[in-house]
Amino acid sequence: MPAPPIHVGPEPKDHLVRAVEDGGGRVVGLEEAEGVIWAGGPDFPEFPERVRWVQLPAAGVESWMDAVRAQPRIQFTSAAGAYATQVAEHALALLLAGVRGIVGYARTQTWSPGGDRVLEGTTVAVVGAGGIGRELIKMLEPHDVEVIAVTRSGRGDTWSVDRLPEVWAKADHFVIGAPATDGTRHLVGAEELAQMKPHAWIVNIARGSLIDPDALVDALREERIGGAALDVTDPEPLPDDHPLWREPRALITPHVANPPETMERDLAKRVTENVRRFGAGEDLLAPIERDRGY
Amino acid sequence: MPAPPIHVGPEPKDHLVRAVEDGGGRVVGLEEAEGVIWAGGPDFPEFPERVRWVQLPAAGVESWMDAVRAQPRIQFTSAAGAYATQVAEHALALLLAGVRGIVGYARTQTWSPGGDRVLEGTTVAVVGAGGIGRELIKMLEPHDVEVIAVTRSGRGDTWSVDRLPEVWAKADHFVIGAPATDGTRHLVGAEELAQMKPHAWIVNIARGSLIDPDALVDALREERIGGAALDVTDPEPLPDDHPLWREPRALITPHVANPPETMERDLAKRVTENVRRFGAGEDLLAPIERDRGY
Repeated sequence: MPAPPIHVGPEPKDHLVRAVEDGGGRVVGLEEAEGVIWAGGPDFPEFPERVRWVQLPAAGVESWMDAVRAQPRIQFTSAAGAYATQVAEHALALLLAGVRGIVGYARTQTWSPGGDRVLEGTTVAVVGAGGIGRELIKMLEPHDVEVIAVTRSGRGDTWSVDRLPEVWAKADHFVIGAPATDGTRHLVGAEELAQMKPHAWIVNIARGSLIDPDALVDALREERIGGAALDVTDPEPLPDDHPLWREPRALITPHVANPPETMERDLAKRVTENVRRFGAGEDLLAPIERDRGY
Repeated sequence: MPAPPIHVGPEPKDHLVRAVEDGGGRVVGLEEAEGVIWAGGPDFPEFPERVRWVQLPAAGVESWMDAVRAQPRIQFTSAAGAYATQVAEHALALLLAGVRGIVGYARTQTWSPGGDRVLEGTTVAVVGAGGIGRELIKMLEPHDVEVIAVTRSGRGDTWSVDRLPEVWAKADHFVIGAPATDGTRHLVGAEELAQMKPHAWIVNIARGSLIDPDALVDALREERIGGAALDVTDPEPLPDDHPLWREPRALITPHVANPPETMERDLAKRVTENVRRFGAGEDLLAPIERDRGY
């Protein structure tokens, strides 16, 4: 099998060049390339005719979809799932910080126990159980919780999105992991929040647009839910005067679920695997489907 | 097998009476009892001759040892291990809150990412791997960390306490779960802190006396370790003017790893099991050994 000619752009970053070579690829200029590893933003050029595949660096590609749709001839792949372990780890950290009272205790400078709950024995809904959700479910396994995993299609033992209306009143806590599309905007709004249990914590490690921020602020202020631990917000970055910063039941982490420390390494791993598959003519990981929008 | 006569003192609390009956026991006055479920403090009476077994409500019994030693004829059992799941869950919550930067972000009111680390790929030392430690190790299993479990005896694949000096420089993070005895006082002191990695987080869910508080404050102030997440302190409660309250690298939770919500339930389960074993003449769970002090 000849080494597939792959371009690394917009800059030939060392770790990605190595990743291509590790996958059996030959790093070439754009004009020779059949595949492209694109580590820049959504403002990529129109790729030459010869290019059949472009690997994007992001797991959530909603801001790339217009550019992807403009070049319908090319198979694009995202990095969905490549960072799943780190993001799931952060999701669990946020969930435990909320449920175990750490959000409040971290802001307290006096010994004042009270109102403590545990995660054990609760029902956790993982809304959007893709790569991250599946990793999180593995991490929840030793915790003796019941998991409701919700996916678009209801594949395997997941609940399909049609049954989502049942989930809000049923689960104790929620981890939002769905992709951002037109269909998932404000997936959690006033109506959904109103059905949640008063101790419910919502964790969002996906995209800020999935939760209606005004409805969330209302629910938190009126103490209708346990709290919200958000790694992603709407807008992002969250401006300093946003009420969520001063809400005792909210924890904001500034989009760090996938930190730079591990991001480079994990993207390189994904590139190596997809270059190998491209060379072997196998199905690529995380193909973007233009219809569904991710 | 006749139902063993068991006294529930100092008050006949409903959930413990039920727990005794669920274990096949018969609840009786102290004068008739062969076993006692003691849900009060260490100021218990001298038990009548007929009493052969006393179940204490605490997992850590260092403050009970004088009273236990004063009645050498009686087999005392602690609740060690009964609350292990909740305490391990809190230990994991503290560890993740530290390593993933949540301690700092919870106190920040502006969008400012930076310096983020992950737990994945690190080495976690569980120092004192009894019931809590074993539960924690199960919870760490899906996290792709290397665990060094340290026990007094080095049983199984744990490291014996003789090798503890090697551990401080080797592990990335530490969870202290050892019992409080004369031998474990200030187990973590200036010398041990000096060997730790600059990103090391120390979690203590055992007893405050295991860590030298002055040495810890020094290490935190001088930014020589990543941080400390403590559910137990020395002294306890930690006074409002203690420097740990204002240390950016410290998180204090006020001894809530074993919250009231689940404590009653878990003690009741342990009582039922030990009453059953007592009736059947089997070995009891968590026998206190006067020599080792727990």
